[in-house]
Amino acid sequence: MGLIVQKYGGTSVADIERIRNVAKRVAKHYDQGHQIVVILSAMSGVTDTLIDLANRMTQSPDKRELDVLLATGEQTTAALLAMYLKTMGYPARSLLGFQAEVVTDCSYGNARIIDVRANQVRKLVEDRHIVVVAGFQGCDSEGNITTLGRGGSDTSAVAMAAALKADRCEIYTDVDGIYTADPNVCSKARKLDRISCEEMLEMASLGAKVLHIRSVEFALKHNVPVFVRSSFNEEEGTMLVNGEQDMERPVVSGITYSKKDARITLKKVPDQPGIAAKIFSPIADAGINVDMIIQNTRAGGQTDLTFTVPKSDYQQALQIEREVAARIGAESVRGDDSIAKVSVIGVGMKSHSGVASRMFTSLADENINIIMISTSEIRISCVVEEKQAELAVRVLHTAFGLDREE
Amino acid sequence: MGLIVQKYGGTSVADIERIRNVAKRVAKHYDQGHQIVVILSAMSGVTDTLIDLANRMTQSPDKRELDVLLATGEQTTAALLAMYLKTMGYPARSLLGFQAEVVTDCSYGNARIIDVRANQVRKLVEDRHIVVVAGFQGCDSEGNITTLGRGGSDTSAVAMAAALKADRCEIYTDVDGIYTADPNVCSKARKLDRISCEEMLEMASLGAKVLHIRSVEFALKHNVPVFVRSSFNEEEGTMLVNGEQDMERPVVSGITYSKKDARITLKKVPDQPGIAAKIFSPIADAGINVDMIIQNTRAGGQTDLTFTVPKSDYQQALQIEREVAARIGAESVRGDDSIAKVSVIGVGMKSHSGVASRMFTSLADENINIIMISTSEIRISCVVEEKQAELAVRVLHTAFGLDREE
Repeated sequence: MGLIVQKYGGTSVADIERIRNVAKRVAKHYDQGHQIVVILSAMSGVTDTLIDLANRMTQSPDKRELDVLLATGEQTTAALLAMYLKTMGYPARSLLGFQAEVVTDCSYGNARIIDVRANQVRKLVEDRHIVVVAGFQGCDSEGNITTLGRGGSDTSAVAMAAALKADRCEIYTDVDGIYTADPNVCSKARKLDRISCEEMLEMASLGAKVLHIRSVEFALKHNVPVFVRSSFNEEEGTMLVNGEQDMERPVVSGITYSKKDARITLKKVPDQPGIAAKIFSPIADAGINVDMIIQNTRAGGQTDLTFTVPKSDYQQALQIEREVAARIGAESVRGDDSIAKVSVIGVGMKSHSGVASRMFTSLADENINIIMISTSEIRISCVVEEKQAELAVRVLHTAFGLDREE
Repeated sequence: MGLIVQKYGGTSVADIERIRNVAKRVAKHYDQGHQIVVILSAMSGVTDTLIDLANRMTQSPDKRELDVLLATGEQTTAALLAMYLKTMGYPARSLLGFQAEVVTDCSYGNARIIDVRANQVRKLVEDRHIVVVAGFQGCDSEGNITTLGRGGSDTSAVAMAAALKADRCEIYTDVDGIYTADPNVCSKARKLDRISCEEMLEMASLGAKVLHIRSVEFALKHNVPVFVRSSFNEEEGTMLVNGEQDMERPVVSGITYSKKDARITLKKVPDQPGIAAKIFSPIADAGINVDMIIQNTRAGGQTDLTFTVPKSDYQQALQIEREVAARIGAESVRGDDSIAKVSVIGVGMKSHSGVASRMFTSLADENINIIMISTSEIRISCVVEEKQAELAVRVLHTAFGLDREE
């Protein structure tokens, strides 16, 4: 017996038949005596359809109004699931973001949850109701509707679980759990029974598509027990754990890759104080996020400066840097948008040396050229040529002993 | 300069191009210096599509959840119009029913407005914003989403106009205004420049499709100046006036017809006290509305009793009355669902005699048989054979001098 928050993603509620299956799963847990709060995404594809509708209405949809529009997606699935649960004879009730008192800041389209008051949720759950909450949405302190950004329903779920002090938060998706690598790329990838929040954070930020990054931050901060499971089978899935709980961990837990970035290099930049600000301020002013930055000092007071930006901002960033280069007297600007970032991740790295050298050696053995390197406490990332990304994942998966036993 | 509430119906916001046209009309009035509050319906067809979705989800959708689902229709158009107005450079903002504080009772699917607080609407309007309110929806005192029933956006608009003490409420639709008869049936029908609320109430309840009946009640009660106009041209439309304002009115203002009812007759009912209750209580218990009732006393302590019910409830009502007839010892039950109700309406009737006889004579002259008759202070209705309904409308239109001059 306990309070369970269950989140079902877009593919799990993609059509009427799947919503019925979700209802059956919810009902099963309810019948076992648990208290159940369900968080739903929109049907898969619906959010994109709504964005497309807004773009047909106007080239630059107002962000506040876009959120009002997008919020209909989760409103629809929440109503449909609740009405089906009622037909099945269960005391269900849907609540929208404002009704569940999911209070956010006012960053329309990418709002952050400030507080989940959930008074009505709590009351209904205590009254043995199944509460179905529209995910992805909240409202700001003035009552405006906000949305949490792509994948935000995960964060809705974990934040709700934290607010309710739930016994567990189950994230139902279309995969069995978190894998050591993308199984589509690496056939020997294994499902992880457990993964630390820190590792999950690195994975999420590096392109593993399973969890919304803020949901992991919430889980870490509020110590919410999160399980990632498939809504299409009964497998146990992967449990997110606090890194400290489990000392006997493998050095590396997973390999990720991402093809979302492009690289820009400024050649022969005069190496003067304040030069970095001149290069990166115009990029920041344009709202472009810079990820990796590498500086190679040359002889003669000159330096080469390389950084990565999202591919979607690549052309704009290139244009900005050409102007910057002319202004500061750099020799040239070059770019490359056929790169990929491959990363090895593991909390075990904190206490093990030699991970980096094993990574570089393994890649070199397969003639994979490393273009850039960056590291964190629990991650090493290498930029490689895009066409070598998948090979690099497989090589590293084997090198770090992650391959599934046949 | 004044405060104008403009309501646009489903055909006026049926697609992106039409929403843009609405935006242009709204902007034009705003540019003239008016304060504008817009009330929107869902795109035409959307409410039906959502009802269909719910019915595919379950045969008997929970009414509360159905309202949550249906409310997405107006949420969508409100967001789209507001974002387009913003693109045009106008300070627009959408508000949903709960944000506009449209407080209703909790009769899901057919809620009545109790209060329109509109604090935020008032503040935004005073701040020179164009406020776009999702029509058709409100929330009950506990914050549950409710809808006002088919055509309810008219009522949203008039209630909002009453709350804001607006200078006028303009109902934009796909017809030029209120006609003396349905122009599709009677080619000589004329647009009325003015019509009294009382007449409009009778027309709305008798099948003229222009205004939601509760909106007219609101206009009457709160003395809101309402104009019915087309959103596709610049015609003046029809003004709803308080009946007392205009003494020089024609005796008859309009002819309506409806094919929505069916007739049931109980033959040779024992004429005893309490017998009517025995006949009508089971019908009421089944939630079926009875409209006209006629009792013909026969010789020998027996009576024939005829009444009408909605066609959609006809078979059920017939079944119920067969059981009643057996119980009370009536001879037989007969029914007829190919009938129509034709009505002449006019506040002038209050002070003119001879309307009924002119109606009966005109119909008789064309060999139209009158099956039932009922009257109110400003209306006379006759049930005729369904196939004669259109002819009856044209005959009466001419007989009461309503025909347009060629």
